[in-house]
Amino acid sequence: MKAGFPAGVEDCGGGEEIGKERLSTEMEKFYVGADIGGTTIKFGMFSHTGELMEKWEIPSRVENEGESILSDVAASIEEKRAERDGNIMGIGIGVPGPTTDDGVVLKCPNIHWQVVDVRKRLVELTGVGNVRVGNDANVAALGEMWKGGGRGFDSIVMVTLGTGVGGGIILGGKILTGVMGAGGEIGHTKVAWNETETCGCGGKGCLEQYASATGIVRMAKKEMRADSRLAAIADITAKDVFDAAKEGDAYALHIVDQFGMYLGTALANVAHIVDPEAFVIGGGVSKAGDIIIKNVEPYYNDNVLFALRDKEFRLAQLGNDAGIYGAVRMVL
Amino acid sequence: MKAGFPAGVEDCGGGEEIGKERLSTEMEKFYVGADIGGTTIKFGMFSHTGELMEKWEIPSRVENEGESILSDVAASIEEKRAERDGNIMGIGIGVPGPTTDDGVVLKCPNIHWQVVDVRKRLVELTGVGNVRVGNDANVAALGEMWKGGGRGFDSIVMVTLGTGVGGGIILGGKILTGVMGAGGEIGHTKVAWNETETCGCGGKGCLEQYASATGIVRMAKKEMRADSRLAAIADITAKDVFDAAKEGDAYALHIVDQFGMYLGTALANVAHIVDPEAFVIGGGVSKAGDIIIKNVEPYYNDNVLFALRDKEFRLAQLGNDAGIYGAVRMVL
Repeated sequence: MKAGFPAGVEDCGGGEEIGKERLSTEMEKFYVGADIGGTTIKFGMFSHTGELMEKWEIPSRVENEGESILSDVAASIEEKRAERDGNIMGIGIGVPGPTTDDGVVLKCPNIHWQVVDVRKRLVELTGVGNVRVGNDANVAALGEMWKGGGRGFDSIVMVTLGTGVGGGIILGGKILTGVMGAGGEIGHTKVAWNETETCGCGGKGCLEQYASATGIVRMAKKEMRADSRLAAIADITAKDVFDAAKEGDAYALHIVDQFGMYLGTALANVAHIVDPEAFVIGGGVSKAGDIIIKNVEPYYNDNVLFALRDKEFRLAQLGNDAGIYGAVRMVL
Repeated sequence: MKAGFPAGVEDCGGGEEIGKERLSTEMEKFYVGADIGGTTIKFGMFSHTGELMEKWEIPSRVENEGESILSDVAASIEEKRAERDGNIMGIGIGVPGPTTDDGVVLKCPNIHWQVVDVRKRLVELTGVGNVRVGNDANVAALGEMWKGGGRGFDSIVMVTLGTGVGGGIILGGKILTGVMGAGGEIGHTKVAWNETETCGCGGKGCLEQYASATGIVRMAKKEMRADSRLAAIADITAKDVFDAAKEGDAYALHIVDQFGMYLGTALANVAHIVDPEAFVIGGGVSKAGDIIIKNVEPYYNDNVLFALRDKEFRLAQLGNDAGIYGAVRMVL
């Protein structure tokens, strides 16, 4: 019904029934941001002004090539919509794989997807026309720029340091997607030429091998010194390394310096290519705090052209919510 | 006068005088592309359909901080306009330095400029409102995409291998400028971690140190082998290295392989960041021909994620005209 009234028809007045219907639909406009991960799907219900009203999550059912995932998403949104008796005006979704600007996901190993036209399928399942789909790291970058560590900027590069290294680039407010949806894959840029071990992608010397939580632990274990307090820890974590460094452990400080060198130089390379306003560093590793930026920024400045020096470096602020914020931002 | 007629007014007919004026202004619309270099300024006069009608050049007068350059540009355009008795509908300019999207040039050592608002100044000098300014390497990339080696693509990365290594990135038909006008500075991305010599920029291990004409000669001289035919040449050039490689000289083949490794890996890094459709390789070095792509492409494919493999590699086709084509493309 609502679609039958062209924009501007309100100015012509109308019967009481029409007036009521218009009022009711205007009062209850909601937007949904969703973030599909390998174990859970996170949702946020937002007002039309971008306020988060409610968060919830459901499990990711990855069996049978993840065929239930999108119908689960649609059903969960419909349930929340019905509770509020409102209209869903837009749905934004982040997915863990390369995604084109048309909303086609090319591959998502984490949720067992091959090529899936997510946008089309969700439009069919929900009846909502305004659906946008993006890669999760890109979408998280958009969220951090909108409401988190990148607030106030228009062009940012975000790196997410977790089990792997994700990246998202926003230029002039828009996600840099790339033709195969592989824009912003900073974790697999090459930063070392003498690496003998292989990265998860099959390459050698990828940033991910040095700057992810896994990579930091790998570096720390590799040449462990007996006089380091890390040597006494059975199964060290990236947090252990940063904690030891903060307490002055020389070997831990060395590892953190190496981490800073690899990440700082990788971001310098990225700056020569896209020249952003700011860098935002997120993911579990970034919880170590300011020690991250203190070790990264000097190596960045040492490795960029003069015009690119002194960019802003910020820590991410939204944690796991960056995805739902960025997702909804695409449709607001 | 003409500005007084809103679009579509032609449909309403009009008096004879108005009809004549409209006809005359429509018949003589020209567009200019200009490319400002350290020794000459190249110009192209184009039709409204983008056909090159005439090329010419004037010297770059760099004395007194290059203060005459823009008035020389304006005078030269006016002279050609008067000869044709036409209207200049747009002027695009490429300049050898970082340039913002607003047309402000931040620094141009080659022509002795500090910060210059090129767009504003040229609008004042010529009375033409439609003026666009871009960095010369970015503008050349746009030209190659429009009429040269990148034809048929919408998103390309171009590297120009000359005395230095320039770069230009076009995504979705638009130049990636960057906030400080330093987008696409591929020549100063780091590709080696063990370099002892310093790049012109002050850094160490920049792509330019291995993939420019100067860099290729530097590599060749560094560990010259007595059994190479290159050892007999007093002052070798990059062309000598490629010529010797084509004739099977083992040392020259080794140097060309090293060149390919550095450039291929650098382009792999760029692909992980912007994920283009194609790469275009230009500049004096690219005149060596297919040997360039044969040595670069395998290293590229070895160093990218699966989704980024098998991009198109092309040689540039417009030579020194890429700048005037790209410049005019900005205003057409």
